[in-house]
Amino acid sequence: MANSKYEYVKEFEVDDKLPLYNWIVVRIDGCHFKRFTTDHGFDKPNDECGLNLMNSCAAAMFDRFADIVIAYGFSDEYSFIWKESTEFHERRKSKILSLSVSFFTGVYIRNWEKFFPKNDLKDTPCFDARVICYPKARIIKHYLEYKQTDCHVNNQYNTCFWVLVKSGKTVGEAQKFLMGTHKKEKNDLLFIQHAINYKELPAIFRKGSFVYRKRVEETVKLDSNGRPILRSRNKVVVGHDDLNDQFWKNHSYILLKKKI
Amino acid sequence: MANSKYEYVKEFEVDDKLPLYNWIVVRIDGCHFKRFTTDHGFDKPNDECGLNLMNSCAAAMFDRFADIVIAYGFSDEYSFIWKESTEFHERRKSKILSLSVSFFTGVYIRNWEKFFPKNDLKDTPCFDARVICYPKARIIKHYLEYKQTDCHVNNQYNTCFWVLVKSGKTVGEAQKFLMGTHKKEKNDLLFIQHAINYKELPAIFRKGSFVYRKRVEETVKLDSNGRPILRSRNKVVVGHDDLNDQFWKNHSYILLKKKI
Amino acid sequence: MANSKYEYVKEFEVDDKLPLYNWIVVRIDGCHFKRFTTDHGFDKPNDECGLNLMNSCAAAMFDRFADIVIAYGFSDEYSFIWKESTEFHERRKSKILSLSVSFFTGVYIRNWEKFFPKNDLKDTPCFDARVICYPKARIIKHYLEYKQTDCHVNNQYNTCFWVLVKSGKTVGEAQKFLMGTHKKEKNDLLFIQHAINYKELPAIFRKGSFVYRKRVEETVKLDSNGRPILRSRNKVVVGHDDLNDQFWKNHSYILLKKKI
Amino acid sequence: MANSKYEYVKEFEVDDKLPLYNWIVVRIDGCHFKRFTTDHGFDKPNDECGLNLMNSCAAAMFDRFADIVIAYGFSDEYSFIWKESTEFHERRKSKILSLSVSFFTGVYIRNWEKFFPKNDLKDTPCFDARVICYPKARIIKHYLEYKQTDCHVNNQYNTCFWVLVKSGKTVGEAQKFLMGTHKKEKNDLLFIQHAINYKELPAIFRKGSFVYRKRVEETVKLDSNGRPILRSRNKVVVGHDDLNDQFWKNHSYILLKKKI
Repeated sequence: MANSKYEYVKEFEVDDKLPLYNWIVVRIDGCHFKRFTTDHGFDKPNDECGLNLMNSCAAAMFDRFADIVIAYGFSDEYSFIWKESTEFHERRKSKILSLSVSFFTGVYIRNWEKFFPKNDLKDTPCFDARVICYPKARIIKHYLEYKQTDCHVNNQYNTCFWVLVKSGKTVGEAQKFLMGTHKKEKNDLLFIQHAINYKELPAIFRKGSFVYRKRVEETVKLDSNGRPILRSRNKVVVGHDDLNDQFWKNHSYILLKKKI
Repeated sequence: MANSKYEYVKEFEVDDKLPLYNWIVVRIDGCHFKRFTTDHGFDKPNDECGLNLMNSCAAAMFDRFADIVIAYGFSDEYSFIWKESTEFHERRKSKILSLSVSFFTGVYIRNWEKFFPKNDLKDTPCFDARVICYPKARIIKHYLEYKQTDCHVNNQYNTCFWVLVKSGKTVGEAQKFLMGTHKKEKNDLLFIQHAINYKELPAIFRKGSFVYRKRVEETVKLDSNGRPILRSRNKVVVGHDDLNDQFWKNHSYILLKKKI
Repeated sequence: MANSKYEYVKEFEVDDKLPLYNWIVVRIDGCHFKRFTTDHGFDKPNDECGLNLMNSCAAAMFDRFADIVIAYGFSDEYSFIWKESTEFHERRKSKILSLSVSFFTGVYIRNWEKFFPKNDLKDTPCFDARVICYPKARIIKHYLEYKQTDCHVNNQYNTCFWVLVKSGKTVGEAQKFLMGTHKKEKNDLLFIQHAINYKELPAIFRKGSFVYRKRVEETVKLDSNGRPILRSRNKVVVGHDDLNDQFWKNHSYILLKKKI
Repeated sequence: MANSKYEYVKEFEVDDKLPLYNWIVVRIDGCHFKRFTTDHGFDKPNDECGLNLMNSCAAAMFDRFADIVIAYGFSDEYSFIWKESTEFHERRKSKILSLSVSFFTGVYIRNWEKFFPKNDLKDTPCFDARVICYPKARIIKHYLEYKQTDCHVNNQYNTCFWVLVKSGKTVGEAQKFLMGTHKKEKNDLLFIQHAINYKELPAIFRKGSFVYRKRVEETVKLDSNGRPILRSRNKVVVGHDDLNDQFWKNHSYILLKKKI
């Protein structure tokens, strides 16, 4: 065969299978999104259309990749948890990583117009991604809690920061003002000086967004007696839940372990 | 700090720096493109608009990533060679892989309309990608030659296959007919039975496409005496060259080694 | 500093930390031990002194490496299980691998004379080793059961093989005779033709050897009333247990999980 | 087959082939050798018997592993360079690492008595090891130069340090005295105050030891006319060369590249 002489170049490809019996996290991050969101006139600190666009991409991921069990996102990042036992592309890291980020990017651009009908894309939004393996379901819970805390801490800071900037402070003054303040002080700043009750801000800002599958019963049609014929199916839902024991009790099927 | 309790989840992230003094190949492949191209009515075996769209994405990669030195593509795949000494994101594999495939996908979708103005995207095109390291410039040359031979062998087969199918054979009959035929027999089939001179088919089909930077002189403006003021700059060009010694002699700057 | 010019060579060293919250198996295997044992006149299929020498090395490993929790060996191989949470040399694979196999080899040679006082070492015994990570305690149990079954299957075959060879068959004849026989046929061969009751062979041959720590009470001295003063301590013991639920019930402390 | 139920545990073993067309360095280091050498009464800063023992181990490595092309050692460490094209155990890292360090340790212990006939081993000497890949022969040269400079810098410091300690200073005083001194000051200290000409110290101390194969002609026997019948063979030699261009010119066969 004509091609055999240089066939040895294929031997440099390495096997990058992810370890078995590990949950796989694919985390996608907007690249230079500070500039991108500014250039496209996003509301600061949170742009609801922008977040909903991200959520629409996350939901599309569930339709495309059957082995994603839960996803969590806030700001310009989204983490997708793949089930412990996935055999998608034989668990090859490059495949999982590249297909995830490629599809997410594609949907983001294709859905853009739906969420920003009057706001043309000025350049190509771009995401980086990484893969992390976690050997226990419990650590996945901790990962998600960690991210939700991250969302909270960032959001509280950013809310204060933008209140200060919008009320006339420079960026530098606002940063200096906030340096070392505690949660209560930040809340007071918002409430007393700006009449903003932090707890009444939209949950999507404060808690981020979860996407997962939910078993739902749907009426398919009515039978001859006019009684509904039901069918249950998995529906992809977006929520802004508090990630606590109750959540996991209600959704215990999400992190179901592989039987050994 | 509120977030410290679960901070340990970050320790699971692994360092994935690619080895130093290696050329890095990022190869991007269309995912399920057989179906995608059929659904979108691409000419078979080659759709010139489709190939030009791919080339436009490859050229955009050069503008975005300064350390790509040459790229080669045919059909639905494209290989990007990053220079041996790149320090892009500290050579982290996940970053290089994900940003490459994300950006490529994004440009593909955004440029689609330009190349297929009457042909709406029906679903989200998606690419996978992999990273391969090569320790010598010479092996990169072999890699590219290997790919160009691959292009040739595939294209010759596909040209014959589609000639047979378009002239009334079933897919199975065409495959059976071609099984085990040699280059000459394939050329004869095309030439004698279908009056196609393989060598006169467009070079973009037979040889694939190279993208690289070329030093060019441009007239910026005329001086007061009407003489041109020249400026030299690197221009990204697309070619369908034969990859041989002459090519490398003419473009020796492309695979310039890092000085040690 | 004089050495800085070539200091870049250090950057080629890669971080090889093993993933967190995984049990680590280091498996050590004799290299060319078929020849080594023949050259040194070992009894076949099992040499009790040889196995005891291996066990003495395994026990020494427990004194040297505090994070080994259980080990299992048969023939010329030994598997050492390191606890899930070990931070020995920051879990660096090269360190764990090299120190394990270096120390094991060293003890094997230094203990040789004790087990083979009349049998000088003719050449340098040598071991290879590998590291495998397991994300759950349950899989470690399966690993050990797998190895014990391996021991059993091999030992039964080898016992039959050597009975045949010692009774006059050639190696080829013995292999042919045994090909495809089942457990019962092998037992019959031993019992009916050679009056060997397989189940009465020493447990060390049939079941291999476990090494682990056991909490024991020891009399330190007597008090003034002649009553023993006890002290409890961990003692490294060698056993030939059946690896079953009862074993793990009795030794539940061995695979104690790291608290999260 | 009886063993199939838990056979899945084998799937956790990962492919760890080292990248092709790379030179492989295996560096072996004494573990806790400061204590080991003190316990065994080694001369400080250098014990000639101890170094010769290390060299004897290195030479034995060349007999055992045909693909080692050059080795360099000083103090309690030794680096072995494996040729770029080695296919030893399919370049599997664990095999190369473990067999190297196991064999080295074994020879160290077995040769001990030859070099320290009156000095019994009090405990088991133990080595760690690591593997580093280098993609160019030139970087291997730099690696070796780096190591030789390391030897020099360390040896000069240690020579001064032990001169001070042996002449009555405490460890702390000696360290303080030497802090920040330059090469010339150290030489002066040795020469003026202690009449030691650093350059006249044995080369094995100042330059470390190289081991490599040398083509030599040997007289096999005399022919009927009394003339020698010569045979050329590769002989493993130990030298204390200066690693410079001349060395590489004289031994250009050592780092011969793999033909592509």
